[in-house]
Amino acid sequence: MATDSSIGNLLVIGTGLIGGSLALALKRAGAVDRVTGFGRRPEHLAEAVTLGVIDDYTDDPTAAAARADVVFLGVPVGAMGGVLSAVAPAVRPEAVVTDGGSTKVGPIESAREALGMRFSRFVPGHPIAGSERSGVAAARADLFDDHRVLLTPCKGTDRDAVERVTRMWRHCGAVVEQMDATDHDRILGMTSHLPHVLAFALVDHIARGADADRCFELAAGGFLDFTRIAGSDPVMWRDIAVDNSAALGSALGDYIGVLQAVKDLVERGQGYELERLFANARRARELLIDRRRTSTT
Amino acid sequence: MATDSSIGNLLVIGTGLIGGSLALALKRAGAVDRVTGFGRRPEHLAEAVTLGVIDDYTDDPTAAAARADVVFLGVPVGAMGGVLSAVAPAVRPEAVVTDGGSTKVGPIESAREALGMRFSRFVPGHPIAGSERSGVAAARADLFDDHRVLLTPCKGTDRDAVERVTRMWRHCGAVVEQMDATDHDRILGMTSHLPHVLAFALVDHIARGADADRCFELAAGGFLDFTRIAGSDPVMWRDIAVDNSAALGSALGDYIGVLQAVKDLVERGQGYELERLFANARRARELLIDRRRTSTT
Repeated sequence: MATDSSIGNLLVIGTGLIGGSLALALKRAGAVDRVTGFGRRPEHLAEAVTLGVIDDYTDDPTAAAARADVVFLGVPVGAMGGVLSAVAPAVRPEAVVTDGGSTKVGPIESAREALGMRFSRFVPGHPIAGSERSGVAAARADLFDDHRVLLTPCKGTDRDAVERVTRMWRHCGAVVEQMDATDHDRILGMTSHLPHVLAFALVDHIARGADADRCFELAAGGFLDFTRIAGSDPVMWRDIAVDNSAALGSALGDYIGVLQAVKDLVERGQGYELERLFANARRARELLIDRRRTSTT
Repeated sequence: MATDSSIGNLLVIGTGLIGGSLALALKRAGAVDRVTGFGRRPEHLAEAVTLGVIDDYTDDPTAAAARADVVFLGVPVGAMGGVLSAVAPAVRPEAVVTDGGSTKVGPIESAREALGMRFSRFVPGHPIAGSERSGVAAARADLFDDHRVLLTPCKGTDRDAVERVTRMWRHCGAVVEQMDATDHDRILGMTSHLPHVLAFALVDHIARGADADRCFELAAGGFLDFTRIAGSDPVMWRDIAVDNSAALGSALGDYIGVLQAVKDLVERGQGYELERLFANARRARELLIDRRRTSTT
């Protein structure tokens, strides 16, 4: 049972980059009694024990859920429904279930369906941290330091559950904010899902083209950044794209319209308009940098 | 006059990131007798002297060109025609004129027109190095270390001129390669110009949108990389986009088609096809990393 300063026994389902880093960060803070892992691959769980990320692991998530004060779902968003159904019957009334998925509307729907009466104990969350690396070997105790974690509680979410999850992420060094789940998916659809899909699409397109070898040989600046983004986990991003298909599809549609206009400017050689667009983008970048500098000093 | 090991007197027209770094790299190698700068803004030239990038500067590029063994054009590609016309009458028969522009067909046309009989002394070049930072304060002696410099000599280009420019860049630590100018513009159109325009367009689009503040506040991962690319010099990129409008317009058209197909997959929730596309992109990234690792060990 959790004391006020500890989050108690933690069950991490999906001990990858996010789940593993959560465990490490809580251990660093001395804020967790025991971390149990569960996942599809026993060899990954064994590796997580060897790396000191989890204390033990189980092949019975239902039984483990019955002993947990907090159940954290670190699986791709498409897998959440199945996992939630497996643990739902066992989760204790005072326990909390939370997730780290990059979309929030889909996991909320899955939780509502799977948890039924226990839905009030589900706190949807999204740590805005990560890396193009994935897997437990990439997990780091400092991954969330000074990073935002967005919680998107619903009308029915218990206040004490939100408070417990907020405390958990603060132990990890994160800055916790609340927002509406639909706003979350629309905004992250533009700032995270869209750029990832753009990078995947460009790298795939060039890799299939006649000039592929030469293009990758000469990859520098811009394209190298795109390839780095495209090094992200395909399954995780497949699930995000499918789960957030409405917002992402709409963002892609808007962006295609933007590119069509830019293409017209390029083909007509309209330098003045292009420079204005480029300069506006640079100004936005400079503002962003200034703001971040100010907020950390 | 240049000895065999020195490139002699260098006139740098446009002492920004590239021109300034060239001067610093040649000084580091002890491979230049004197570096004179010319540019539109005297205060930038004075700064370049203070920083030890150039030895002196001139307000008379024609007279300075008459004393130069190598004239380097570090100006945006749209400014090359004007600069070349100014120095053309003064360039000595044995001197070499070269540039660092990101497009090659346009500068070659400008040089052919401006230099006339002296066109055989023009060696088109493009160092594949840079930064989103610009200006002489960003110049670094090691900017070109282990980076590629692409030279795109034409049929009429003098062999000894190409050799002199090759030697110059090797002094800077670069790996020099030759390629066809049209191939250069097509390939760099895809790997450099397109990603830059995509980033400028996305950042400008989001900055104009209703969610702009929230989007920039939550900028992480993918979008943060896009904003960094969009921090590049708007005038330089305007000139590139206009100069390479045919190849860039065509690359944009192809990419719009790709995005339309991806949008359809997203909106239809076709996870299998999306995962295959994302996985293919990640594989291409991994191959790229493997190759680079092999080539440096």
